[in-house]
Amino acid sequence: MKRLHHLISYFKKSPFESNLRMLIGYRTANVLLFQTALNHRSVKESPTENNERLEFLGDAIISSVVAEYLFKKYPYKGEGFLTEMRSKMVNRQQLNHIAIQMGLRRLTQFNKMDGGLKSSQIFGNTLEALVGAIYLDKKYDFTKNWIVEKMIQPYLFMDELEQIDINIKNKIIGWALKQGKQVDFVLAGEQLEGRRRLFTINVVLDGEVVASQKGYTKKDASQVAAQKAIEALGIV
Amino acid sequence: MKRLHHLISYFKKSPFESNLRMLIGYRTANVLLFQTALNHRSVKESPTENNERLEFLGDAIISSVVAEYLFKKYPYKGEGFLTEMRSKMVNRQQLNHIAIQMGLRRLTQFNKMDGGLKSSQIFGNTLEALVGAIYLDKKYDFTKNWIVEKMIQPYLFMDELEQIDINIKNKIIGWALKQGKQVDFVLAGEQLEGRRRLFTINVVLDGEVVASQKGYTKKDASQVAAQKAIEALGIV
Repeated sequence: MKRLHHLISYFKKSPFESNLRMLIGYRTANVLLFQTALNHRSVKESPTENNERLEFLGDAIISSVVAEYLFKKYPYKGEGFLTEMRSKMVNRQQLNHIAIQMGLRRLTQFNKMDGGLKSSQIFGNTLEALVGAIYLDKKYDFTKNWIVEKMIQPYLFMDELEQIDINIKNKIIGWALKQGKQVDFVLAGEQLEGRRRLFTINVVLDGEVVASQKGYTKKDASQVAAQKAIEALGIV
Repeated sequence: MKRLHHLISYFKKSPFESNLRMLIGYRTANVLLFQTALNHRSVKESPTENNERLEFLGDAIISSVVAEYLFKKYPYKGEGFLTEMRSKMVNRQQLNHIAIQMGLRRLTQFNKMDGGLKSSQIFGNTLEALVGAIYLDKKYDFTKNWIVEKMIQPYLFMDELEQIDINIKNKIIGWALKQGKQVDFVLAGEQLEGRRRLFTINVVLDGEVVASQKGYTKKDASQVAAQKAIEALGIV
């Protein structure tokens, strides 16, 4: 009898609630919180009703979970490698890609009349907001496992990501070539931090700085700057 | 008798262990981990022996704890405000300042022959590494309370930080004036994200880009760009 009751109450749930349950993998008591996480600001102007505050929170949680994941997966690698790997795992395009595969395109509430939104990275932002909501709902350890099991393991292939650095500068150079634009990696600054030199590399597209990054080697700074430029320019 | 034993074992601890206990507020079984957290790379070259990996981890943990702290303290504020406040709370100079007040200048192991290091922000980096070690030792919730009780409450005065934005552009302009240099805030780019415009502001010092920031308003982007420039230039 109890079981029948359970079944009935399951089927009585709104379609939103069952979709949400499919998405996050558990039944939450905080349905409203998750509704907020799915509202892009094009449908809700108020900071308490759209997902930007949750996105701010979720972005930070994802960063620290990924930091720990990398710290433990690569016990002998230095900070430069870890930073670069994190940037490859959770840059905006990568997050957007994961979000779309998870089905967030269908669940995100946004102004569909606005054609520009579909091509921007709003689904990745929704994913960050979703993580923010899960964190508020279930705290850190649960969220950490969720990120590892639902985001990293199914969608991020670490062996492949390790290899990307070789190609990332080439990618933007190739893109510029096709567009008939000129891209340069410019050493924009050099500071001393103790005896170590800290380099600033700017990515300059047709004379305009599109990304800038500091690093202890020019190579490190250039890689991350290239990644930033690729995101800023929306190069796929 | 048991109590006497306890007392004796307490006084038998090395000076390092009692200093560490004073600093972190509890007695840890992982003394080696904390020794690593206090080693600047100028004394230990290997990534497994210096504090840079722990700094990477701790930086991320601090960011998410501060994100949640702000999210809850300012329930009606938008993401732009939260991002700006976090940048004011945990920028490199602020962290260095907190670290020095905590006594980390004395405990950090670094090459004291290297005069440049003292003026750089290495103590703030050590503080991040210390948080990384506390996290590995005691997990998230403990570390969250530690950050709130030992870093935020004693050293970060939120009312004052809220007011800083009015002055932050003026600070760099005043500094440049004294140095006989020219500083400009330049609109370096404008993109469409859906119907929203995303502005890129560069801070240009004597013709060289020293900081760059995107934002949904020119004001927001300028504030954060000014903060970045202040850090990059080491303006106190």
